[in-house]
Amino acid sequence: MKKAVVLLSGGLDSVTALSIAKEQGFECYTLSFNYGQRHSTELTAARMISAQNGAVEHKVIDIDLTAIGGSALTDDKIDVPERLEEGIPVTYVPARNTIFLSIALGWAEVLSADAIFVGVNAVDYSGYPDCRQDFITAFEQLANVATKAGVEGNKLNIHAPLMKMSKSDIIQEGIRLGIDYSQTVSCYQADQKGKACGKCASCRLRSQGFEQAGISDPTRYQ
Amino acid sequence: MKKAVVLLSGGLDSVTALSIAKEQGFECYTLSFNYGQRHSTELTAARMISAQNGAVEHKVIDIDLTAIGGSALTDDKIDVPERLEEGIPVTYVPARNTIFLSIALGWAEVLSADAIFVGVNAVDYSGYPDCRQDFITAFEQLANVATKAGVEGNKLNIHAPLMKMSKSDIIQEGIRLGIDYSQTVSCYQADQKGKACGKCASCRLRSQGFEQAGISDPTRYQ
Repeated sequence: MKKAVVLLSGGLDSVTALSIAKEQGFECYTLSFNYGQRHSTELTAARMISAQNGAVEHKVIDIDLTAIGGSALTDDKIDVPERLEEGIPVTYVPARNTIFLSIALGWAEVLSADAIFVGVNAVDYSGYPDCRQDFITAFEQLANVATKAGVEGNKLNIHAPLMKMSKSDIIQEGIRLGIDYSQTVSCYQADQKGKACGKCASCRLRSQGFEQAGISDPTRYQ
Repeated sequence: MKKAVVLLSGGLDSVTALSIAKEQGFECYTLSFNYGQRHSTELTAARMISAQNGAVEHKVIDIDLTAIGGSALTDDKIDVPERLEEGIPVTYVPARNTIFLSIALGWAEVLSADAIFVGVNAVDYSGYPDCRQDFITAFEQLANVATKAGVEGNKLNIHAPLMKMSKSDIIQEGIRLGIDYSQTVSCYQADQKGKACGKCASCRLRSQGFEQAGISDPTRYQ
């Protein structure tokens, strides 16, 4: 059976990427990060969702990105915005996806995995440099010269199945796959129980997605 | 003044890379990792050497690579070898340089740095996939699509000044730059005081380097 490491934040996108990996016949190993984000309820969601989806193993790696800062998500002095911003938003975390994919690459090598799945998409997050296809292509090229497996000719593929999908498309695909989105946490500043603020840019994008998909929004709000 | 993030393990190579960056006129920000390596005396060396070289700031980031394992350096069940091995050695840590460079990339972006310096070399470490020029080139390409700075056209350069140098060449260059190598720790299993075992592959390579350079080995052995 093919193996995949799946980056799983516990949000709507990454959970959909996990369901797609599973449908494509991959044995899934899920990877989450405790990186100093504003709340850890998404990690609780990730653990539960991994178990429900039959992931072989779920790892949470600690890496303190607040030591670097530079983002509203990792620096308390920068406020989380309530509107979708033009250009690159202050919620962009410098090199975050590069760092997360690198650690996934290390685990993929130890597991002799065939693929890494990541739930990035360029449509809604066009402002994030590390959510574009150019970035994924460059990372895949790097992955295949960076590791023992790559040097030995065992190609690792980086799958970003949501890349060209809108939030509405992603939700429709997830509903088809049977996902219960009430368990996912997308909010940048969810409370201790995982309830969403309904105001931040991530909440707005998510609720617009349900509206456009014509599906009642199951998100648990504060 | 140009800024550089310098990956600094506290070993012979990275300290030489730091001296080269300084000589080239870079304002240096040094970065070390507490990643679950077998000893942390190299971190003590890194801190001291950063201060002596006038680094503007020295950061130590915690990231537990023992959670991934797969190497004699991050898994206690795998012994550190005493001989230089053919092929890719068991001391290779899966994706380690990719992970370290990714975190350096995040910091470089926050600092608006111009370069990252890394002390890898392909001559002595031909067995490590992530110590080759192909890897550095692929990482540089990734770096320039992964970040806000890259997207905005501010190119980040990855410097690997030791790439084509033998251990003996590196030592001669370091001596010219005034490095006191007795303060550096290269041993895979140094003791609490930073004294080297003299037996592991890294110690052997280092002592051969001094011999070939015709320089008395200043390493503090156990």
